[in-house]
Amino acid sequence: MKLAAHEARTHFTKVPVVRLATADDVGQPHVVATTFVVADDLIFSAVDGKPKQSRNLKRLRNIQLNPRVSVLADHYEDDWTQLWWARADGTATVLEAEDDMAEPIRLLEEKYWQYRQDRPEGPVIAVTVDRWSGWVYAG
Amino acid sequence: MKLAAHEARTHFTKVPVVRLATADDVGQPHVVATTFVVADDLIFSAVDGKPKQSRNLKRLRNIQLNPRVSVLADHYEDDWTQLWWARADGTATVLEAEDDMAEPIRLLEEKYWQYRQDRPEGPVIAVTVDRWSGWVYAG
Repeated sequence: MKLAAHEARTHFTKVPVVRLATADDVGQPHVVATTFVVADDLIFSAVDGKPKQSRNLKRLRNIQLNPRVSVLADHYEDDWTQLWWARADGTATVLEAEDDMAEPIRLLEEKYWQYRQDRPEGPVIAVTVDRWSGWVYAG
Repeated sequence: MKLAAHEARTHFTKVPVVRLATADDVGQPHVVATTFVVADDLIFSAVDGKPKQSRNLKRLRNIQLNPRVSVLADHYEDDWTQLWWARADGTATVLEAEDDMAEPIRLLEEKYWQYRQDRPEGPVIAVTVDRWSGWVYAG
């Protein structure tokens, strides 16, 4: 059964990790798992690895070349009547200025205790969602 | 810590569901969750919904326009020292002939008891993997 946009958005927020798909300028897709937080129709995620590698990640290079992204939250159980997914399609920007990253990182720290112990350095990816969609099993 | 190709492939097979990213001919990415089976350097997944809708899925239309795909397996726990991911990048084809779908569907039925109760109708997506990559937390 398809979900209405507001239902898809609600489901989306229920999982700890989503998968972010980007594509480069010749259409090669790339998909990564990432922590995230939703604020209105924005999704924020932060790069949380070692700074030297962080700035050269494929996802960041792709977004510079092509801002279109697709982000998926889904739930799996062996009981397939419990399956659902929710997807956010939109455009991404990379935030690197401390002022721009402060609020997203605060929200991520609020959601994940792991970030309160080890603050992500960024950059932050901000996705403006154009479309929320989703599905739940319905017999 | 990065994984060697054969280690990434082994990790990839450990999960029940992966996320398949495709992109259309203007570079709009699309990501879905899917069951799957690995056979050598091929990944098979089957469309298992209602036939009328199945043939017009966005993932199938994208693959016809642009065969490049990226497929992610990952493991999440609140203990982030247990995180890992494995990714397969490659090219996909859509199998629709019964003869072509028979072996992939047999493998899927072998892996998932749910498919033994309700055989997927197809089409089947066959991904030829060009590159296995992966990462595990290593302190």
